[in-house]
Amino acid sequence: MSGDADAAVGTSLTAVAPDGVPVVTKGDDLAAVLTPALEGVVWPDGTRGLAEGDVVVVSSKIVSKAEGRLVAARDEAERERVIADETVRVVAQRPKPDGGMLRIVENRLGLVMAAAGVDTSDVPAGTALLLPEDPDASARRIRRGLHARTGVRPGVIVTDTAGRPWRRGVVDMAIGAAGVRVLSDMRGARDRYGRALQTTVIGVADEIAAAAELVKGKVSGRPVAVVRGMGHAVTEDDGEGAASLVRPPEEDMFRKGVDEP
Amino acid sequence: MSGDADAAVGTSLTAVAPDGVPVVTKGDDLAAVLTPALEGVVWPDGTRGLAEGDVVVVSSKIVSKAEGRLVAARDEAERERVIADETVRVVAQRPKPDGGMLRIVENRLGLVMAAAGVDTSDVPAGTALLLPEDPDASARRIRRGLHARTGVRPGVIVTDTAGRPWRRGVVDMAIGAAGVRVLSDMRGARDRYGRALQTTVIGVADEIAAAAELVKGKVSGRPVAVVRGMGHAVTEDDGEGAASLVRPPEEDMFRKGVDEP
Repeated sequence: MSGDADAAVGTSLTAVAPDGVPVVTKGDDLAAVLTPALEGVVWPDGTRGLAEGDVVVVSSKIVSKAEGRLVAARDEAERERVIADETVRVVAQRPKPDGGMLRIVENRLGLVMAAAGVDTSDVPAGTALLLPEDPDASARRIRRGLHARTGVRPGVIVTDTAGRPWRRGVVDMAIGAAGVRVLSDMRGARDRYGRALQTTVIGVADEIAAAAELVKGKVSGRPVAVVRGMGHAVTEDDGEGAASLVRPPEEDMFRKGVDEP
Repeated sequence: MSGDADAAVGTSLTAVAPDGVPVVTKGDDLAAVLTPALEGVVWPDGTRGLAEGDVVVVSSKIVSKAEGRLVAARDEAERERVIADETVRVVAQRPKPDGGMLRIVENRLGLVMAAAGVDTSDVPAGTALLLPEDPDASARRIRRGLHARTGVRPGVIVTDTAGRPWRRGVVDMAIGAAGVRVLSDMRGARDRYGRALQTTVIGVADEIAAAAELVKGKVSGRPVAVVRGMGHAVTEDDGEGAASLVRPPEEDMFRKGVDEP
């Protein structure tokens, strides 16, 4: 829990994604649904379950399902309307080979992603799944519920998957967080030559989300992982959440050449 | 080593960053320098050293140092010239509060980053460190050397740290790779409703780089980590490397509004 630069770095980390998480539906209490699977996690040293300092990483898909964020999207036009409703700004667009437009947009949460984060994969035909309304609040609720049920207060991260400009392949990132220091601020840390470090603020929560994705996966029925070894990033209070990972407009160097919706 | 979607997802992953890696200087054989530390890695189950299926993740900084990529940069003007030499295209720029220009540029390797990836942190005063000339070749060389010394043929990833547009905080990514399937192609995989997955190609090598950064850190003298549990992404042949992670210009939706250098 120390804030100094060296203490902000562990030497070992383990991520485990348990099997046996049931299908989540509207109204489910996620902490209650996840607790048996989390308590069944087996660690490489043979121990089981959650411990203080663990970070529970949950795919936004099941958070959205529990929160009833499934909406009708019976055809392409309706799907486009759902995406438009979630969009606050079109960042880039180009025609798709099969017709229609591929749009990278900023959504209500400030996240820049294709389709505004609206998910039409692994949901019933004729529907689309919106992101949680307030993923930081979702993370806090899950944290509170896990604490009540297990006696442990892990950090909680809610993740989604997004593409990047310039890089092929999608990666997971943190869209909600509670009890996790989402950025590790190394400003003030010095290199061995006594100069300030050039690379100063590390996107710790996004790196934890990426590590967790490697074990959770997309089609495996493993929507949750526990990451152990990041206790130095777990905080007593819930903290400012993943909303603070969104770069404010005044820092955004990529606002030029933008088509407004 | 299976190519099917479910086999591409493990359920557990451990990353360990060993202490005791000596300071690297020009001409060092990195595999030779790293082998004692890698063989000393202690896993949570009490076993030691490298095993087949492991991925060795190496910070580009020590690769560059071993390859003699330190150049003179005695003042700001010289530093600017070094960066300009590495730049092939200015992607975005804006004035810095303290004078000069903050430029996000594409470098010779096709990577889009601040300062073209030229590092002036943790190097002797009056110098700057260029990225490796060909990080995929560096990764292949390290892999070959580790195999010769340990009998194990791990995957090898060479990493660097970069900012992202729209997200605060830097994260590590793969700029070189050997024996690692850098992208996990899930196209063709189906959800439980029988529809093709929307999110199809996962940036596995970048996610491994991110996981490794969480244990390596920046100022800790731990420039290497071993990631265990990703054996399904480790390949017999060296593969196409991290160069294939660079999005080709025709897929790049963010080429508008660009200032040419």
